[in-house]
Amino acid sequence: MDIEEFRKRGHETIDRICKYYQELDSYDVLPKVEPGYLKKLLPQEAPEDPESFDAIQSDMESKIIPGVTHWQSPNFFAFYPASSSFPTILADMYSDMLNCIGFNVSSLSSPLLCCAIAFFTHLIMICRKWICSPACTELETIVLDWLAKLIGLHSDFLSEGKGGGVIQSSASEATLVTLLAARQRLLNKYKAQGLSEDELYELSTRLIAYGSEQTHSRLEKASMIANTRFRIIPTGRNFSIRGETVMLEIENDVMNGLIPFYIVTTVGTTSSAVNSISDIANAIEGTSVWLHVDAAHAGSALVCPEYRHYLDGINRSDSFDFNMHEWLLTNFDASCLWVRNRKYLNDALSVKPEFLRNPASESGLVLDYRDWEIPVGRRFRSLKIWFVLRSYGAKGLREHVRKAVKLAQRFFHGILRHPDLFAISAQPAFSLVCFHVKSNPDTPYSSNQLTSKVYDRANETRQIYLSRTVLHDQEVIRFAVGSPWTTEEHIDKALELLVKITRDVVRA
Amino acid sequence: MDIEEFRKRGHETIDRICKYYQELDSYDVLPKVEPGYLKKLLPQEAPEDPESFDAIQSDMESKIIPGVTHWQSPNFFAFYPASSSFPTILADMYSDMLNCIGFNVSSLSSPLLCCAIAFFTHLIMICRKWICSPACTELETIVLDWLAKLIGLHSDFLSEGKGGGVIQSSASEATLVTLLAARQRLLNKYKAQGLSEDELYELSTRLIAYGSEQTHSRLEKASMIANTRFRIIPTGRNFSIRGETVMLEIENDVMNGLIPFYIVTTVGTTSSAVNSISDIANAIEGTSVWLHVDAAHAGSALVCPEYRHYLDGINRSDSFDFNMHEWLLTNFDASCLWVRNRKYLNDALSVKPEFLRNPASESGLVLDYRDWEIPVGRRFRSLKIWFVLRSYGAKGLREHVRKAVKLAQRFFHGILRHPDLFAISAQPAFSLVCFHVKSNPDTPYSSNQLTSKVYDRANETRQIYLSRTVLHDQEVIRFAVGSPWTTEEHIDKALELLVKITRDVVRA
Repeated sequence: MDIEEFRKRGHETIDRICKYYQELDSYDVLPKVEPGYLKKLLPQEAPEDPESFDAIQSDMESKIIPGVTHWQSPNFFAFYPASSSFPTILADMYSDMLNCIGFNVSSLSSPLLCCAIAFFTHLIMICRKWICSPACTELETIVLDWLAKLIGLHSDFLSEGKGGGVIQSSASEATLVTLLAARQRLLNKYKAQGLSEDELYELSTRLIAYGSEQTHSRLEKASMIANTRFRIIPTGRNFSIRGETVMLEIENDVMNGLIPFYIVTTVGTTSSAVNSISDIANAIEGTSVWLHVDAAHAGSALVCPEYRHYLDGINRSDSFDFNMHEWLLTNFDASCLWVRNRKYLNDALSVKPEFLRNPASESGLVLDYRDWEIPVGRRFRSLKIWFVLRSYGAKGLREHVRKAVKLAQRFFHGILRHPDLFAISAQPAFSLVCFHVKSNPDTPYSSNQLTSKVYDRANETRQIYLSRTVLHDQEVIRFAVGSPWTTEEHIDKALELLVKITRDVVRA
Repeated sequence: MDIEEFRKRGHETIDRICKYYQELDSYDVLPKVEPGYLKKLLPQEAPEDPESFDAIQSDMESKIIPGVTHWQSPNFFAFYPASSSFPTILADMYSDMLNCIGFNVSSLSSPLLCCAIAFFTHLIMICRKWICSPACTELETIVLDWLAKLIGLHSDFLSEGKGGGVIQSSASEATLVTLLAARQRLLNKYKAQGLSEDELYELSTRLIAYGSEQTHSRLEKASMIANTRFRIIPTGRNFSIRGETVMLEIENDVMNGLIPFYIVTTVGTTSSAVNSISDIANAIEGTSVWLHVDAAHAGSALVCPEYRHYLDGINRSDSFDFNMHEWLLTNFDASCLWVRNRKYLNDALSVKPEFLRNPASESGLVLDYRDWEIPVGRRFRSLKIWFVLRSYGAKGLREHVRKAVKLAQRFFHGILRHPDLFAISAQPAFSLVCFHVKSNPDTPYSSNQLTSKVYDRANETRQIYLSRTVLHDQEVIRFAVGSPWTTEEHIDKALELLVKITRDVVRA
């Protein structure tokens, strides 16, 4: 494909994207395909000869699109409606144009030479490393500082000091790298006390991390990878964990010879619960436990001052993460992580010898993002954050968040208008409503069974997409609002559909 | 930005991309900016009000592009020329249009309900999980099967059986997840023998992994994350490791109470060395060591049958990875990993309870990629692989690889024409030439010092971009070819420049 054919195909693709968003409302949110459908439609092997782009476009329309779950649909209320936007698409086009691999590598990997390096050449070293992808590296630092200020994060997390932000792929990855940083901080301490390598390995088997039921899977996955222990703290009636419980668990574990080192607390769980950061910070006061605040979904709401109180105590946490790709008009992946002291993250993930790291990387002039994440390379992801922040402005982002919250409230009040059918399962916050179907004298089925049936039937219509969870043994339907294309009409239609299905299920 | 403004801006961006590639040759490959340049040009905070796209475009041209290292430049010979192509850009546009988050989650997370599930509902479960992103999930399985066949991987690695492929972000991530799978396989075995949790933790502190000097950083990073020990196997004269050395190291470690569990061998290191897979497989025969083959860069060459012999013994390895984003016209990120038995990878990374995993996920009908990687979500990355494989066909990809190899050979012969100035540092293979500057009676500087000076001066011209490495204490310049835009003329000019600089340096 030469430049002129690309121009033609590029223009066609832009028009295709426009058509997609024009017709989005008419698509069923869920596709009507069976598992394994695509294998039957495609050849067993890659073609030997080049195929025309006509053929690819045609297969895209006839084979891929019919098998797509439309995450951008205004009727997508499952998980989190991963809100896209046009500026994010344009930014990715620029990113793809450049296809720069945003890593920095030391050009001076030889200890032989490096030992002779004086201060002056340290500066050359920064330049050499950073020159792989200067704009890519610097823009990431800048927009994450912008974002930190925008959501009211404490100034300790800015890159000017010892902190800084980095784009990760997902909140799971953010949990993992902060858990590694926490372990490193503790091991550094013991190492400084003169413990041998073998003693450090032995000690690391006694490390234990904590999280709530609501962050179960992320913490469990990170712990499995890092090979550390973890404990799930049971939540109270409002589905959040209490400092008091944390304190008891920690004391108990310490008595049993374990070493608490990390806790993840959540602002906005899958049921919208908010753990008090201060309460948890109090509970771990005086310990060596790293406090990570996971605001994967709800973090986006912090662009609005009315939610800012959820950050009370953030100055006492060690790290904070939220997924801009969940609710802030930015395409996956854009999980934004900040740490108060980047040294521990870098110690945990850098394979460079210590003497190569000072004072260059600690000068704050240029950050070395390969030491902030698992993969070594990175796409030019900061472009999309930059485009979105500028295209919408703080005002536009606040409007977007508030619109979703208002729509969720509309749904919430709709649910309340049917006390015979539904009950609210958890106090709604942000743009998520958790509800369940009540048991009913007309049917032998339990509330759990009814909820499950309604959930299945609703998704089977393919007109709306919901997800589910279990809160203290109660089957719950999650209704999450976030797409910029969702209007009051979509909310009302979804409610109407749910009422109809529930009446049918109860009567059956 | 509404649909019509996006149409306008999208068309403009397509034209901008065309212009970029039309002018690519005229850009200096390295930018003329100082570390911290961008911070001085941008505001301290995100704007309060929306900005026009004109303003963003204008800043893109005046502030970002001047700070970009042009990885697509025909004069980029550093690291690996991450070859992009127009089909990969178009595929990413479709991916961004849909912005589907390619994870599968079980809709049935409640153990309460799940215990009562019979075989029939297992099928529903697959559908429920898979329905999040059906086309995204299925296309990934299909194109990785295509690719496996295209590069001549053993049929054990296909998804039809127990194996399968997955797209990771980078070869570092592939090293990490296979190391985790290796650990899991061993722990499963000991667990089956009745070891307690505490005993398993103790045992895991004695696990040790192996790799060559050439894979040092990936193995070290993965080991740091997983908290396992590692040992670097010294390489022989041709910079590859020998089975004999591996066997001795393993025996020695076992005698010292350690438990060898993982080895990474490399097809095409940063100096093009190729370790024999069979030789290493023989060395670990009868042990529980997992054999991972890292062909990050050279793997792309396997589309050509003449390189296929490097895969001899691949049927005895446990996993294989190569970066399609390095040399196969596909944008970052597309690190393609295959495992012989996906069970161990899934055991290491799945947080689902065991009873939820059979027989659904083992049926091979639909793979659950969240259990194959660190992040939970994923972009629709398989689209770009599909577009590239179809647009070029096997023939086109072979041509692309052979062209780069031929250009590298041209450079190699150019170096040989100057035996007074240069020496070849390692036998070139694929499209990489490693050379150094010879010491010379005209100058008091050593070969290492001269090589370093030439390297610096060459990059300082900003007209070409080279990288460097150290092979057995010898400073080495790496000259890697791979951009589809590089022609014989670029190679000749680069050589001419290097000769001129070297003469100047020697004379100085």
